[in-house]
Amino acid sequence: MQVEVPEYTVAEDVAVDPSRTALIIVDMQNDFVQAEGALPIEDAAATIGSIRRLRTFARDQGMSIFYTQDSHYAGDPEFDLWGEHCTVGTPGWQVVEDLAPDEATGDLIFRKDRYDGFFGTNLETTLRQREIDTLIICGTVANICVLYTAASAAIRWYHVILPIDAVSAINEFDLQLTIRQVGWLFRGTITRSEALRASDE
Amino acid sequence: MQVEVPEYTVAEDVAVDPSRTALIIVDMQNDFVQAEGALPIEDAAATIGSIRRLRTFARDQGMSIFYTQDSHYAGDPEFDLWGEHCTVGTPGWQVVEDLAPDEATGDLIFRKDRYDGFFGTNLETTLRQREIDTLIICGTVANICVLYTAASAAIRWYHVILPIDAVSAINEFDLQLTIRQVGWLFRGTITRSEALRASDE
Amino acid sequence: MQVEVPEYTVAEDVAVDPSRTALIIVDMQNDFVQAEGALPIEDAAATIGSIRRLRTFARDQGMSIFYTQDSHYAGDPEFDLWGEHCTVGTPGWQVVEDLAPDEATGDLIFRKDRYDGFFGTNLETTLRQREIDTLIICGTVANICVLYTAASAAIRWYHVILPIDAVSAINEFDLQLTIRQVGWLFRGTITRSEALRASDE
Amino acid sequence: MQVEVPEYTVAEDVAVDPSRTALIIVDMQNDFVQAEGALPIEDAAATIGSIRRLRTFARDQGMSIFYTQDSHYAGDPEFDLWGEHCTVGTPGWQVVEDLAPDEATGDLIFRKDRYDGFFGTNLETTLRQREIDTLIICGTVANICVLYTAASAAIRWYHVILPIDAVSAINEFDLQLTIRQVGWLFRGTITRSEALRASDE
Repeated sequence: MQVEVPEYTVAEDVAVDPSRTALIIVDMQNDFVQAEGALPIEDAAATIGSIRRLRTFARDQGMSIFYTQDSHYAGDPEFDLWGEHCTVGTPGWQVVEDLAPDEATGDLIFRKDRYDGFFGTNLETTLRQREIDTLIICGTVANICVLYTAASAAIRWYHVILPIDAVSAINEFDLQLTIRQVGWLFRGTITRSEALRASDE
Repeated sequence: MQVEVPEYTVAEDVAVDPSRTALIIVDMQNDFVQAEGALPIEDAAATIGSIRRLRTFARDQGMSIFYTQDSHYAGDPEFDLWGEHCTVGTPGWQVVEDLAPDEATGDLIFRKDRYDGFFGTNLETTLRQREIDTLIICGTVANICVLYTAASAAIRWYHVILPIDAVSAINEFDLQLTIRQVGWLFRGTITRSEALRASDE
Repeated sequence: MQVEVPEYTVAEDVAVDPSRTALIIVDMQNDFVQAEGALPIEDAAATIGSIRRLRTFARDQGMSIFYTQDSHYAGDPEFDLWGEHCTVGTPGWQVVEDLAPDEATGDLIFRKDRYDGFFGTNLETTLRQREIDTLIICGTVANICVLYTAASAAIRWYHVILPIDAVSAINEFDLQLTIRQVGWLFRGTITRSEALRASDE
Repeated sequence: MQVEVPEYTVAEDVAVDPSRTALIIVDMQNDFVQAEGALPIEDAAATIGSIRRLRTFARDQGMSIFYTQDSHYAGDPEFDLWGEHCTVGTPGWQVVEDLAPDEATGDLIFRKDRYDGFFGTNLETTLRQREIDTLIICGTVANICVLYTAASAAIRWYHVILPIDAVSAINEFDLQLTIRQVGWLFRGTITRSEALRASDE
C-alpha cells in the first residue's frame, strides 16, 4: 500500500544560540552502524560525515555535545525483542571510532536501556543546569531512539532541530514518519547539517 | 510524495486476561470530537460506536476503565501551538456524552496537560497497584495522544492493543504511522474492536 | 531517649519575588485537620490562622496558590498502612472550609496518592511554565507530605521557604526533623508566616 | 535543645527472599569515607565491616548488588552547596577499595548527581526487570543519600531494610531522624547487619 506523505519544509538557514543549544548524537554504536554489527542499519554509516560536520560546528561554537549509548546487560528483556545487542563492555556497544566521544573535552555520555534518551538518565537535569533550550538531534535509528528522545524533549518544551542527512532509518516510511512527527507535531525544525550556523555570527 | 507502508497484520482474535487488562479511552472530548469543537478531528465521531463496544466489553468483564482528559488553563503554552482548547470547566473539555465516564462505577479520569497520558499523572502508579500489564488504547488523536500514551506504556513494558476502528487521525499517513509504531516498534497488537474477548471465556 | 537538636536560625525578614514564588498548601483536608477526621493531627487546626495569613499575602501579591489534596480510591494500598482516609468525594477529603481553594481566582489543586506533591502530578510542569523558582510550603503533616514535597522541590533546585507556625506534626521530634532537613540539607529558609514580604515593597 | 526520640524496634531476625531482594550500597566513596576526602563522614569508615558482611551475605545468596556513586562534573551546582566533591574520574569519586564493586560478577553501579539514587538513573527499571520488591539499603550519608534513596523506594512500594550498623551520619540527631523516617513513615525494617538471613535457609 502507498500513502501520501504530508508536505514539509526543509529549512535552508538555521541560526542557533550556542550557549543554549546542545548536540545529541544518538546510538552511533558499532552494533547499529557496522555491517557486521548485531543490528545493522544499512544507511547509518553514510551519516557519519554529516554527524562529524555537526560535531565540528558544535565544538567550534563551544556547544555541549552529548551522546546516548544504548547499554544492556545479560538478561535484558530487550534481547527478546531484538536479539542481543549493545552489551556493556563489548565492541558492538562502543560508539564508532569516527565519532568517538572526547570526554576530556567535556563530551558527556548518557547510557540508556530503552529507546528514549531521557528515560532513566539524568539528561533532563543536565540540560536544565546548563540552561539549554534547543537540541540538535541526530544519529540512529530514526523512528526509534532518535524519535523518542525528540518526543521526550518536545513534551518538556525543548525545541528540536532534526538534520535529516544525519539521521538513518531502515526504510523510507520510517524516515518520513520521523520527519512528520518532529516537524509537524513537535513543531521542530527539519533541516540539513550544512544549514546550521551560530546566531551571533 | 507517496511512500510504501510496511506490511502489518490485523489480529482477528485477541484474548485478554480481564484482571490484568485496562481500557484507556484517550481524549474523546467535545473539542476534538464535535464538528463545532475547537480542534475537530473529522473521523473521531465515527469511532464512538467502536469505543462503546470496547467499553461494554470492559464493563462486562469487570476490567478497569480509564479516561485521559486533555486539561488546560488560561495561559497554557499549548495554546500558542494549537489555539485555545480543552480549557478546564468548558463544554469542549468534557468527554462526549455518549462516552461519559461513570465515576460511580469506578471509571477513573486522568487529567493531563501534554500528549502523553503518563506524563504528569498517576497512571503508572495506578496500573502497578492493580497489577495491570496490558492496555487496550483507543480514542484520538492517533499519532498524538494515542501514540505517545502507547509509547510511554511500551517503554515501561506494558503490552499495548490498538483497535484501529476505535482510533481517529487527521489523515491516512498519520494513522498508518501510528499503526507502524505500535505494531512494529512497540510489538503491540493491531486489531479491531470486535476481535477482543476474555481469555477465560 | 533524648537527643540534641542541631541549631538553626529562624529568619525574621524574608523577601520574595511574587512573580517567581508560589504558595503550596499541603493536605489541609478535614480528615487531617478536624478532630473527628480519619487521621487527625492535633496541632493542625492551630495553623489555619497562619496559613490564612500566607494566603492573603500571596493573593495580595498576585502569587500562584497551589493546594495538594491527598486523594484515594477504594482499595488503595495506603489504606493498609493508615486506614481509610481522604477518599475522593467524601467530606474528609475536602480542604477545610476556612482554607477552601478559590478555583475561580486561579488556585490550582493537585491531587496526589502518595506523600510527595510532585509524584504522579503535573506540579513540576506547572512550576516551569510559570517560571517559578521559590516555593513557600505549609500545611500538614510536617515530616510526611510537607517534607517529601519539599524534598522533591529541593532536588529539582527550587528554593524552599518553610514558615514553621504554618506546619503541624504529631510530635516535637517530627517537627524538628522536618526543620533540620529543610533548613540544613535543602538549604531552605526557616521562618514564620509574618516574616514574609514582597521584595519590591 | 534536647528532644525525645520516638521509640522503635531493632529486628533481631530478618528473613529475605534472595530472588526478590537487592543490596544497595550508597556512596561509599573515598571523598565521604576517607579522613582526607573532600567531605569526610567521621563514622563512615567504621561501617565498612558491616557493609562487607552484608555484601558477603548477598553474594552467597546470589542477590543483586547495586552501588550508587555520587558523580559530578566541573560546574555542578552542588559544588556551591558542598564544595567540590566526587568529581568523575578523581580518586575521591572511587568507591573505597575494601568495598570495590565487582562488575565481572554482575554488580551494577548507578551514577547519580543528586541525593536520591532513583533520580536520573535507571534503578527503578532495573528493579522491575528483576522483579525485586525488597531493598537492603546501607552506606552514607544517613539522612541524605541513604534516606532519599529509601524514600523514593518506599513511595514506589518497595520494602526497605535498614541495617543501622551499616549506615553513618554526621551526628546522632541525623541518624535518629533517618531511623524514624524509615522505620515509622516508610514502614521499613530497622535491624543490624548480622540479623539478615535467607528465608529459605
